[in-house]
Amino acid sequence: MSDPIADPSLQKPLRLALAGLGTVGTGVVKILQTHGATLAARAGRPLELVAVSARNRDRDRGVDLSGYDWEDDPVALGRRADIDLLVEAIGGADGPAKAATEAALSRGAHVVTANKAMLAAHGDALAAAAEETGAALRFEAAVAGGIPIIKALMEGLCANRVDRLYGVLNGTCNYMLTEMERTGRDYGEILAEAQALGYAEADPTADVGGFDAAQKLAILSAIAFGTEVDYAGVAIEGVERVSLADIRFARELGYRVKLIGLARRTASGIERRVSPGLLPAGSAIGSLEGVTNAVVCEGDFVGQTVYEGPGAGEGPTASAMVADIVDIARAGARPAFGAPLASRNAVLRLSPDAAEASYYLRVSLDDQPGALAQVATALGGEGVSIDQMRQLGRRPDPATVLIVTHETADRAVRAATAKIADLAVCREAPVVLRIEHA
Amino acid sequence: MSDPIADPSLQKPLRLALAGLGTVGTGVVKILQTHGATLAARAGRPLELVAVSARNRDRDRGVDLSGYDWEDDPVALGRRADIDLLVEAIGGADGPAKAATEAALSRGAHVVTANKAMLAAHGDALAAAAEETGAALRFEAAVAGGIPIIKALMEGLCANRVDRLYGVLNGTCNYMLTEMERTGRDYGEILAEAQALGYAEADPTADVGGFDAAQKLAILSAIAFGTEVDYAGVAIEGVERVSLADIRFARELGYRVKLIGLARRTASGIERRVSPGLLPAGSAIGSLEGVTNAVVCEGDFVGQTVYEGPGAGEGPTASAMVADIVDIARAGARPAFGAPLASRNAVLRLSPDAAEASYYLRVSLDDQPGALAQVATALGGEGVSIDQMRQLGRRPDPATVLIVTHETADRAVRAATAKIADLAVCREAPVVLRIEHA
Repeated sequence: MSDPIADPSLQKPLRLALAGLGTVGTGVVKILQTHGATLAARAGRPLELVAVSARNRDRDRGVDLSGYDWEDDPVALGRRADIDLLVEAIGGADGPAKAATEAALSRGAHVVTANKAMLAAHGDALAAAAEETGAALRFEAAVAGGIPIIKALMEGLCANRVDRLYGVLNGTCNYMLTEMERTGRDYGEILAEAQALGYAEADPTADVGGFDAAQKLAILSAIAFGTEVDYAGVAIEGVERVSLADIRFARELGYRVKLIGLARRTASGIERRVSPGLLPAGSAIGSLEGVTNAVVCEGDFVGQTVYEGPGAGEGPTASAMVADIVDIARAGARPAFGAPLASRNAVLRLSPDAAEASYYLRVSLDDQPGALAQVATALGGEGVSIDQMRQLGRRPDPATVLIVTHETADRAVRAATAKIADLAVCREAPVVLRIEHA
Repeated sequence: MSDPIADPSLQKPLRLALAGLGTVGTGVVKILQTHGATLAARAGRPLELVAVSARNRDRDRGVDLSGYDWEDDPVALGRRADIDLLVEAIGGADGPAKAATEAALSRGAHVVTANKAMLAAHGDALAAAAEETGAALRFEAAVAGGIPIIKALMEGLCANRVDRLYGVLNGTCNYMLTEMERTGRDYGEILAEAQALGYAEADPTADVGGFDAAQKLAILSAIAFGTEVDYAGVAIEGVERVSLADIRFARELGYRVKLIGLARRTASGIERRVSPGLLPAGSAIGSLEGVTNAVVCEGDFVGQTVYEGPGAGEGPTASAMVADIVDIARAGARPAFGAPLASRNAVLRLSPDAAEASYYLRVSLDDQPGALAQVATALGGEGVSIDQMRQLGRRPDPATVLIVTHETADRAVRAATAKIADLAVCREAPVVLRIEHA
């Protein structure tokens, strides 16, 4: 029915080109050089790096590149007829990364990339280009670094209808939130420290604004729900306004504050959001420390599975890229997002204000008789019912009131907190954070 | 270079036969019936269940089997020329499960199985049979139920040299240990309860004796280290002698007791063991509750990744088996353990007493002057150095002394505790539990 398995070292090599020799690209070279023989056994054929490209030819990257052809132009790499697979490690949604990817795919050469920005912006178009020529387009490293979460979703859990997936998709934000809690220092100080340590960029917007996590969520969601890549439909809120006070109050209530990326199937559409929220402190995601990433996936047959590991860095990212290369060497192409584009659907977006969840509210009130009753009345008037309410011990004005609601629609909570903000006894706009059940 | 991706529904179906209609086999039928169209899109071709077999044809299994041929003999299923793939859900290391598997593989038909006992006993021979005809032999469901840990190890982490993998591979034992801690009831009571709830078998030996976990560890270890399947070389100790007292003392020291399956690369060989041990309470494995399974894998480039989920049950196990079927439908065969048999090595077994770790010791002493000094002397004499020592508050004789050692060879700890047991002041043989760092 099939042929016996042959000696890998005697098979035709898979010829690779690598565009981009920053941290990630250099990591790929290191793995290919370190584990060549093992990789050939696992891939069923040798992996042969033929040519590389980068902006600066002369920089010392700590690896020997003398055995590879050099191309100044990454697009020329993608066009080379002697290349079976292009590793794109340039980065950026457009520009040379996209041009080189398109050049490779259009001639049927496979592409392995870690470029979440490019996939969030152009994933469907690139997948279509790949389908047209039968090339593979793979991007395990684009989401959650070294964790093989795309493989788990697309292959390991493929027997399931996914109902919810959520997790921590940005290590920088998780580092900052756990450091704020651990050290008791505020957002600005911790951001400066993260920048000094290299965990945050000089312009930290992509991380702290939630955009990086949203790109990853858009990719995971397309795979999990069999839809187009819809980055524009992800509701995004960053960690900039998370205060040390709320981190501490959440902890007192048994929760921790995380930047949560969430995609969920509901009867009215698919909810997708990145926002700071509370999770039970003892849960897999709630207990996550430092720069680690983790994803929880819930399927109708398998139930809940959890994946945790390093979300970035040279070794983890390169590990994911080389795994993609080995898969292609062994098994060729499959549809980029798990099923052919023709079988995928547009996203039925759930309106963000129709989303339902429990909420954490922090209200600052003048400490005077009846103040709490006014807050309770405002909540009740919008149909928001209270699970826990805690007024913090006597201290100088204003009094802090913490409220955990029962499950309720986002719009009801927003309406109630707008009313509370308008109360004469209310000192500042209430803080509203969603609570995700584990 | 390749062909464009075609409409899956127009492709040649993959024709399946299913041997065994217990919980797992019935689960496979349910998934195929529930998600047929999605699976075809993901597999690139329809999955068509053609024939089934079980011991009892008349039992109501809650699924409609009328559309499938019936065979009384599972081996006849494996021999049918109109079948591309046999799903083996009979169970048992030998007998009809093995005969049906061999019948299928010998004619080049693929096999998907959840049968860890068969793989631990005959994995290499079956893999050789598969290689000879080019058939696939897949067994994601054999280890950690619904968690795609074999896929993660074999494919997702294939760019790495694995240095250590460990985890909780038996849900029954983890349920029992966490219930002992939670309820304060002892081993016998909790075992009876687990049996009543269906979490433990009437004969619980395979679970509580560590043999089930050892079969899974032998399979994971063969994949991770590229060696033969060496179940006989796994050192096995069960949970039968874990006492409530040690669970509580461990907790006081910041640890939890788990049945840990561990495989580790050392300079002197590969250490593989299943034994009760301590892990930091806050770690991924230490914090695991109930019947959940989890595996930590450490690779040279990726670092540490963690996989957690349901280790058994109809839905999770069937989810894993159907994922294997989809993979085969899309990509055909690959070597059963990740690399061709010819490229794999014999296991260089690390002698169990050469293993190094920290240890937890509990010693019961007559509460008399100098007793503690005698214990310390015995340890020091074997070169075992002490990290923590705690004598529990004044209570009736005997006094309980808890000791955490620094990293030391197993043989040194055994020699020292043998000396301690011989001391006149020592009331009973010391309890020795290994501590695994997270």
